[in-house]
Amino acid sequence: MTVATVYNRMVLPIATDDPAADYEALTQRVSLWDVGCQRQVQVQGPDALELCQYLSARDLSQLRIGAAKYAPLCDHDGRLINDPVVLRVNEDTVWFSIADSDVLLWIRAISGERGDDVEVSEPDVSPLAVQGPSATDTVAAVFGEWVHELKFFHFRRIHHEGIPLVVCRSGWSKQSGFELFLEDGSKGDQLWDLIWAAGQPHGIRVGAPNNAERIENFLLAWGSDTDAESDPFEAAIGSYIDLGATHDFVGKNALLAKRADGPTRELKGLLIDGEPLEANPEPVGLQTPNGSYAGQTRAVVYSPRYERNLGLAIVEVPQNLPGTKLQVPTPTGWRPAIVVDLPFDL
Amino acid sequence: MTVATVYNRMVLPIATDDPAADYEALTQRVSLWDVGCQRQVQVQGPDALELCQYLSARDLSQLRIGAAKYAPLCDHDGRLINDPVVLRVNEDTVWFSIADSDVLLWIRAISGERGDDVEVSEPDVSPLAVQGPSATDTVAAVFGEWVHELKFFHFRRIHHEGIPLVVCRSGWSKQSGFELFLEDGSKGDQLWDLIWAAGQPHGIRVGAPNNAERIENFLLAWGSDTDAESDPFEAAIGSYIDLGATHDFVGKNALLAKRADGPTRELKGLLIDGEPLEANPEPVGLQTPNGSYAGQTRAVVYSPRYERNLGLAIVEVPQNLPGTKLQVPTPTGWRPAIVVDLPFDL
Repeated sequence: MTVATVYNRMVLPIATDDPAADYEALTQRVSLWDVGCQRQVQVQGPDALELCQYLSARDLSQLRIGAAKYAPLCDHDGRLINDPVVLRVNEDTVWFSIADSDVLLWIRAISGERGDDVEVSEPDVSPLAVQGPSATDTVAAVFGEWVHELKFFHFRRIHHEGIPLVVCRSGWSKQSGFELFLEDGSKGDQLWDLIWAAGQPHGIRVGAPNNAERIENFLLAWGSDTDAESDPFEAAIGSYIDLGATHDFVGKNALLAKRADGPTRELKGLLIDGEPLEANPEPVGLQTPNGSYAGQTRAVVYSPRYERNLGLAIVEVPQNLPGTKLQVPTPTGWRPAIVVDLPFDL
Repeated sequence: MTVATVYNRMVLPIATDDPAADYEALTQRVSLWDVGCQRQVQVQGPDALELCQYLSARDLSQLRIGAAKYAPLCDHDGRLINDPVVLRVNEDTVWFSIADSDVLLWIRAISGERGDDVEVSEPDVSPLAVQGPSATDTVAAVFGEWVHELKFFHFRRIHHEGIPLVVCRSGWSKQSGFELFLEDGSKGDQLWDLIWAAGQPHGIRVGAPNNAERIENFLLAWGSDTDAESDPFEAAIGSYIDLGATHDFVGKNALLAKRADGPTRELKGLLIDGEPLEANPEPVGLQTPNGSYAGQTRAVVYSPRYERNLGLAIVEVPQNLPGTKLQVPTPTGWRPAIVVDLPFDL
């Protein structure tokens, strides 16, 4: 890996010097990602489920042991502060598998004020992702044929050759695959080597969360696609918010008000004209054809699948309507772009 | 600058390729630090002061407008979660000038649960530090002679040549100096250039928070000298905790219990024998002369002032007693060390 970032105070490798090969391995074969920086916040104790239900803007009341759910977390004012996957590990234990913000402090603050009988901690759990069309065969070759039966967002907690881990059918791509939640950091090399060897017949490659693939299929990158004020409706993940829930949860009243008011801006897709653009993670201002401010890009990437430039942008109302024509600044000047719904449907 | 780290999701330059010159400029002349990553969490509104009093383990009831205080923040279980300097900016506005953790989320969680009438935000404020014996002359040459009259941990909020900023006598060194809290990020170059020009007669040098100087004088580096479970007594900043306060604050009961029980480990100084050691920020395990575990180093540095190797270490009770002989592993083998109180008094 030649490019890295810092995520939850840890190093996250994000690309090799051959992005085309990274993309090809992920979409055609199998890719192995060190995503140990995707930390878990563990909530454990008699009040764990009730607390988690109060923390999450998505209804977790039906979350069974061995199942996971994508569960946006909003603050009391309805701002999106993280978008973890929540795993029900056992009767009284839940993991929030988090994006890059200190959810541990936030949960401790709320549980402390409520006086809940829980322990909130960061356990020794480091995810390793195996993603791509051959991920299932690779993982099954290590852990057994039962892996084929595992449903999406379901997991088993096992010991394999002395390695404690959770094998979950999940991951930050739409290529199918697994996240292996290693529960003993000293056994990382051992787990890596097992998967690496099993992936050889499938052409496994070292990879990382892939920006082109995740934009083509729209998986939200919290903190990149969102800013400090984004709410889940603006961030195009409103469908995961259970405002009809009868129980109270953090931010519920604020979110009800936001939904009633309607958003003033919205994360949308952009189809950008012209030659392939260099990936640009820095926000740049968009404008209408007559030059007025229309929002800002959050990510721009050339899509190998669609063979065109895609963008994600926070677009001001009413320019968020699909079909709206906008202008995007690029290193070679302004380029025409069209607003489309997410996920892309090209 | 040739060495940098990530702090509050921003880049913090930490050293040039000439550490001796960095140290000499800071302790003999004047050093200019970009510490924009030292973010402010602003609490504003009718309930701001009452909330801050509840958040802080140090009594802030006497904090006047224009004054600052070092105010450790502990969670409900008494763990030290940050150690900001708190500035009372005006009647209903307080800034927490924070170390590297998401205090914003933590404060919003608590104020949200309490229902306080406050707004908690991260304003456009980026500190620039001017530190060293000639810092006062440098800063006074820019802003005026009144700077000489400013007492330690006091500030004035001014506009200077169109630049809005807070001029505070403070900073993360014991060489005296100022932190300039720039309130308009677009004017960073302008402010930098003013200070840089005024510092020329004094031999100003670009610098950064200096590990050798801060260890010699013991300024706590939260997150480096502390771990996830450290409490303020263990971290040698217990004198800033006002357990005698009549009001309730977050973690008060837990801290009372911890003080009654006494610590099981404590941050102490180490005097390490032998030739100058390379600075090592990675914790390494300490042992007693008979080989049993005695704690771990948190920082090791060669002190130009004392011309010997110093360490900060979390030492297990009863090895925390001053004069205790321990062994420190180094690249050239085990070295004898002696435990001393903090701050160093050599």
